[in-house]
Amino acid sequence: MTTIVDKFEMNHRIEKLNRSTSSRLILSKVEGLKNKLKELNLDAFLVSNFYNIYYLSGFKTLTSNEREAWLLITKKNNYLFTDARYYENIKYQILNIKNSSQKSNILIAKLITPQKNLLQHLQEIIQQEQITKLGFEADDLKFNEHQKLTNTIKLIPTEKLIIKLREIKDDNEIEKIKKACRIADHCLSEIIKTIKVDQTEKEIAFKIEFWLKNNGYDLAFYPIVAIDENSALPHYDTKTNGYQKVKQSSVILIDFGAKYKDYLSDITRMIFVGKPTTEQLNIYNILLNAQQKTIKGLRKTNDPKKIDAFCRKLIADNRLLIYPHSTGHGLGLEIHEYPKISEKSTDAIQKNQVFTIEPGVYLPRKFGIRIEDTVWMKEDNKPEVLTHCLKNPIVIEF
Amino acid sequence: MTTIVDKFEMNHRIEKLNRSTSSRLILSKVEGLKNKLKELNLDAFLVSNFYNIYYLSGFKTLTSNEREAWLLITKKNNYLFTDARYYENIKYQILNIKNSSQKSNILIAKLITPQKNLLQHLQEIIQQEQITKLGFEADDLKFNEHQKLTNTIKLIPTEKLIIKLREIKDDNEIEKIKKACRIADHCLSEIIKTIKVDQTEKEIAFKIEFWLKNNGYDLAFYPIVAIDENSALPHYDTKTNGYQKVKQSSVILIDFGAKYKDYLSDITRMIFVGKPTTEQLNIYNILLNAQQKTIKGLRKTNDPKKIDAFCRKLIADNRLLIYPHSTGHGLGLEIHEYPKISEKSTDAIQKNQVFTIEPGVYLPRKFGIRIEDTVWMKEDNKPEVLTHCLKNPIVIEF
Repeated sequence: MTTIVDKFEMNHRIEKLNRSTSSRLILSKVEGLKNKLKELNLDAFLVSNFYNIYYLSGFKTLTSNEREAWLLITKKNNYLFTDARYYENIKYQILNIKNSSQKSNILIAKLITPQKNLLQHLQEIIQQEQITKLGFEADDLKFNEHQKLTNTIKLIPTEKLIIKLREIKDDNEIEKIKKACRIADHCLSEIIKTIKVDQTEKEIAFKIEFWLKNNGYDLAFYPIVAIDENSALPHYDTKTNGYQKVKQSSVILIDFGAKYKDYLSDITRMIFVGKPTTEQLNIYNILLNAQQKTIKGLRKTNDPKKIDAFCRKLIADNRLLIYPHSTGHGLGLEIHEYPKISEKSTDAIQKNQVFTIEPGVYLPRKFGIRIEDTVWMKEDNKPEVLTHCLKNPIVIEF
Repeated sequence: MTTIVDKFEMNHRIEKLNRSTSSRLILSKVEGLKNKLKELNLDAFLVSNFYNIYYLSGFKTLTSNEREAWLLITKKNNYLFTDARYYENIKYQILNIKNSSQKSNILIAKLITPQKNLLQHLQEIIQQEQITKLGFEADDLKFNEHQKLTNTIKLIPTEKLIIKLREIKDDNEIEKIKKACRIADHCLSEIIKTIKVDQTEKEIAFKIEFWLKNNGYDLAFYPIVAIDENSALPHYDTKTNGYQKVKQSSVILIDFGAKYKDYLSDITRMIFVGKPTTEQLNIYNILLNAQQKTIKGLRKTNDPKKIDAFCRKLIADNRLLIYPHSTGHGLGLEIHEYPKISEKSTDAIQKNQVFTIEPGVYLPRKFGIRIEDTVWMKEDNKPEVLTHCLKNPIVIEF
């Protein structure tokens, strides 16, 4: 795998990339941020986060953890800074955008080289556009990156600006998440058919991964497949562990999601191999009832703290231990977004958010039950469940 | 997928994790860091980076981009801070370490809760151990994380402290990398047999991924499979693009690596479908000669800048365009580590480093050739190539 060029300005050499590359470099999402900047009295905003850059510009680099691109949104313009490995492709895509009627939606690509780095580009634009108040992502920028920029540029820290815009999905995003949910449903129904005694947790996780990728999709995250006592661990690490086997009588927790065009789904289902015990069935039914009532509860309040407390109370009222995790979380491009459905949440549930509802009951050393769906707030107080895989207890008998 | 608990201290509920979990929580690597701290006159060091925490402690959380653990190395002790989802597992592993003779190698686990967060734990230890100079990873800690800690704790920024320790591999790490190289060799030889006309780049990449995972290994990074003109793009994104097909006469660049027990390999080979043209063969042979001479050149200098310049000159002397990327990069737990083999490198090549040598020749709109091996510096000035897949031009004729 090659690393970035040290010296050579390659823009004259690197050729236009494959034309099948997505050309969604029209910045349909940038207006929301510009409004926010006005509100906060900022002249411009530097975006460093990989997902936020993608969300605003449609531009994605190969890795999410190496700084390969930056975005600067000013009152007048939108700039993308990247190196020679990506620059020509971007330029080419921009040339191909014909239907961009608004100037404010056009992206200006700037080439980063050792001779002209991000700081130098920024200084130039700051002078040209007379920017004095430049916001940045304090929850993303590293300490040393901030130090390098702040010597000459006055930076104003902000937190969660774009991720809070991301919590309200547009029609296009909803469609992708819906599809990701349908894919997860389909995948799970196929995988259930293949479960056999003596399969390990890892094998089942691999089957899920293979099914998704073989059908042209991807994992939302590495699946949690937890058998018997491992299912009592809410955050069981199947990748590192995963050697527990399916027995003639087993409880299997499967928590996974599909990725479709960069958008995710998230679902948890329980599979009983052999006849479930009365205790298991009782807990399953109490939990299912609590989960369904909680989803219905979204019709009555938009306060996630209340939703969270409501769900926990339904479990506690049945003298069961309440779960050591939140009741749910937003999702979209990333698996953990806003709103948080938890006791300390400061969010409000709104139209066009998408989040999970996923209570669980965990009996240490015995088993755990979790039931999770992805839910879309179609209208205020009108939740729609997007994951449709059966919630009657799934029982496999050999 | 569950998110972290908001309130409940779950240590009394969460059960011991699966016993197959690696119990390498003996901190064999921590002495190197402690020596470094003495040198820098630091009393303690806060580690935030996922890979650095794993390297020093053997402890790994589910995700690398959400802060789920922190490590504090003091003169006397080593502390790991994590939340309820991981805490009991850690405690259990520590109890099971019987052969830790040195106290300095023992890990003390501390539970993070909303009632007692990282900052509060740190303040307590700082007082107990009278720490005044606390170093941190300025190239990893976020601006806002620093702000939260620095209100009450004096923090001293450092850069690249642990990643520079990681560049010298021990015997155990070398063995894992060797195995990762053998796996990549084996995988590639199997994949070559399956290449057919009309296969897409994505399909070939998927076959590589499937072969590795089906055999219990993993990808080092998403493979670059670039056919014909796409091979002229040094950083071609097969995942986003990848629809180019193999023709009766094609050049295929495959750049990939295997992951074995968390350690990586990296290799690039060219596959010619149908008889290569004279131009292709000429360039291939010039490049192969340059790559092999460069590896031999490691016997004569330990200056990566000289190695880099030497390789580029061999290409330029043949009137070919030199490549817009570095000649090589260290690898280990991550695909881009030290040393850098590049024009601006400030590193020194030393015994027990592992890095790539990967020059390329790229003819825009036509094709590109890159040849890459993973190289181990067995002794000073004694390089050993670890990737053994054939370097005669690989030709498939149907």
